[in-house]
Amino acid sequence: MTDDGTTRGGGAADTLRAARAGLSRILEPRDTIGHVILTALGAQAAWEIVSGHRGVRGDEHARIDRVLREHAPALPASVRAAGERWKARADGCDPVMDLQRAARSGIWVCIPEDPDWPAALDDLGLEAPVCLWGRGDRARLGGLDRRSVAVVGSRDCSSYGRTVTYDLAGGLAARGWTVYSGGAYGVDEAAHRAALTTATGAVPTVAVMAGGVDRFYPRGNDQLLHRIADEGLVVAEAAPGTMPARFRFLDRNRLIAALAGATLVTESRWRSGAQSTAHHANRLSRPVGAVPGSVQSATSAGCHRLIREGCAVLVADIDDFLGLAGPLGTEKEMEAGPLAIFDGLSEADRQLADALPVITGATVDSLAMVAGLPVRTVLGGLRRLERSGLAVDRGGLWHRPRRR
Amino acid sequence: MTDDGTTRGGGAADTLRAARAGLSRILEPRDTIGHVILTALGAQAAWEIVSGHRGVRGDEHARIDRVLREHAPALPASVRAAGERWKARADGCDPVMDLQRAARSGIWVCIPEDPDWPAALDDLGLEAPVCLWGRGDRARLGGLDRRSVAVVGSRDCSSYGRTVTYDLAGGLAARGWTVYSGGAYGVDEAAHRAALTTATGAVPTVAVMAGGVDRFYPRGNDQLLHRIADEGLVVAEAAPGTMPARFRFLDRNRLIAALAGATLVTESRWRSGAQSTAHHANRLSRPVGAVPGSVQSATSAGCHRLIREGCAVLVADIDDFLGLAGPLGTEKEMEAGPLAIFDGLSEADRQLADALPVITGATVDSLAMVAGLPVRTVLGGLRRLERSGLAVDRGGLWHRPRRR
Repeated sequence: MTDDGTTRGGGAADTLRAARAGLSRILEPRDTIGHVILTALGAQAAWEIVSGHRGVRGDEHARIDRVLREHAPALPASVRAAGERWKARADGCDPVMDLQRAARSGIWVCIPEDPDWPAALDDLGLEAPVCLWGRGDRARLGGLDRRSVAVVGSRDCSSYGRTVTYDLAGGLAARGWTVYSGGAYGVDEAAHRAALTTATGAVPTVAVMAGGVDRFYPRGNDQLLHRIADEGLVVAEAAPGTMPARFRFLDRNRLIAALAGATLVTESRWRSGAQSTAHHANRLSRPVGAVPGSVQSATSAGCHRLIREGCAVLVADIDDFLGLAGPLGTEKEMEAGPLAIFDGLSEADRQLADALPVITGATVDSLAMVAGLPVRTVLGGLRRLERSGLAVDRGGLWHRPRRR
Repeated sequence: MTDDGTTRGGGAADTLRAARAGLSRILEPRDTIGHVILTALGAQAAWEIVSGHRGVRGDEHARIDRVLREHAPALPASVRAAGERWKARADGCDPVMDLQRAARSGIWVCIPEDPDWPAALDDLGLEAPVCLWGRGDRARLGGLDRRSVAVVGSRDCSSYGRTVTYDLAGGLAARGWTVYSGGAYGVDEAAHRAALTTATGAVPTVAVMAGGVDRFYPRGNDQLLHRIADEGLVVAEAAPGTMPARFRFLDRNRLIAALAGATLVTESRWRSGAQSTAHHANRLSRPVGAVPGSVQSATSAGCHRLIREGCAVLVADIDDFLGLAGPLGTEKEMEAGPLAIFDGLSEADRQLADALPVITGATVDSLAMVAGLPVRTVLGGLRRLERSGLAVDRGGLWHRPRRR
């Protein structure tokens, strides 16, 4: 057992862990130059530079420039100016002691060099967190699979929003999905509670905090968050002791979006953190769903906006969600496939392609009925779909070709 | 004044009018071979053949075949079999007397050869109606402009659906839009009533009937339909005396979709005539909007389906609708010139133009992702493409302009 509460890694791993723990105290998620240095030179060298123990050496300049050019060409690369910023925080920073203190409170830290690091976070590229501080049985980190969903929404949700959240998050947890959320009041709370109640999977729910995992925020959810730590996980990129400042909530949302395989906004106001989570998920090419509600209710305006702007697909029930983000939907090839292929099609042909069964096959007549199209249109459409490889005729029965 | 109650046309026009009035008694909208003959040979010859006065002559076969090949290649061209079908109806059909009787009841018939024929119906191609029977001041036909909307939905709507319909139809009518609907209970009724109450335009509302305009259906809306005839128009493709059979409602929906510049489904069940109107509008490349509601309410399931399947854009308020179908949206979009236009573009702009979807629209963020360009480049590129007529912004969603 090492000092930081894990059973993995020897001395070298401990050094990396301490380096990253230290960096997580100094580098904010938007400290681009810091993350460029981390990406270019690795955790150990980055820690030495960021903590002010040494400057950038000869060939390191070129390596930093290469990462800068690739990821942030617009950024003026002033390590010197950044150094001023880091100095104030670096003074008195003792990551080794930090890790020891954390371990005594049951807090561990997971780093990208660990085998149980959630690979999904790497999709964030330069915006990936330096490390992940956590509470709860760390073995559960390995139990997180692709069937996971971020269920997010407004804090001041309506009873409609609460019910819908409970139904959808609970229904997914009952099917073995892990439910990610932010531990806040309202939709977050309902999502976590539903998952704790109905879960059948290895990890019912994960709360991603904006501040440190040592103090649970908001205080009113203290009991809930303790239960999440007992049965699931509570994680954060901010080091213990970090206050959940306003800007940290927006940065935190990118972690929720990246950790979960899909995002579902169950009720959201026009301006709401859930909008930012949805946009992050979109940028990461994760499926995003949003639940509509009354157009007379301000609490649904954010969901409607996401749907109208094409940032989210309308989700009215659990089948809609599974259709969007189910096991097939989360496969890589499906993510890129359909949109591109279907984009050139007319609405009628798209309807027709949608109506094609994969296994049983369908006659022209039944397709006409299902797709609500005249037989003539169906015949022409099938010929076009066949040419594009989107329909296959097997003895008069039309199928959708299987994707490999 | 001619026999049929119009002030237009001489003897020749009267002959055409009688021919089309007769054809409207015999040809159902889905009688493809009949419509092929009408398109190929014109109303007079079509009437002579369909009414059984004569057969198809020498060169007429080739003309019919040409239209068949173009519009309905899958159809077996058996005029003889169709003749059997027509005979039963043709017997005892006297269009001249028909027109006289109609005129005495204040019913007129408008034909494509008339200057006040609604040109929008021609977009239906082979499925365009043979003629339009109508009640109400015929001069209003000329007052129908492009700012028109079909407001449709379920008959058994909720109080939410009624209120939303009233608000949106009333708001549009107050801005001078003509509201089309089907004169049924529920959403249709609310749409017509709202338009009659708030209208500022030349024609507040038009009811498109499934049966003949001589009998108003449903009976419970008799008073409302009389008021619509007084202040707007009541029209139908079916000849007076035709019963509003079930299949006629589905055929009627294509007329509503074609006559209106855009379609708005305010509340609709999973299976509802409004779905068919929306699909017709889509096929005609008319903008389609749908209003979401509670996912717990079966009365909104149809709207949610339309939105999820990309057949309708989510409309939460009147601004959403105007963004979708406002004056700009209904203008024929600039014809995007040939490939030559792409020659002047930078590689990045060309990539961006390629990434633009035709139907669904894309946000700036998703375009940045698809085209693999920074958001800043995408923003600048879209402005350039818009100036060249190669990109269209509809409420934050960017489209490639449709080619005609």
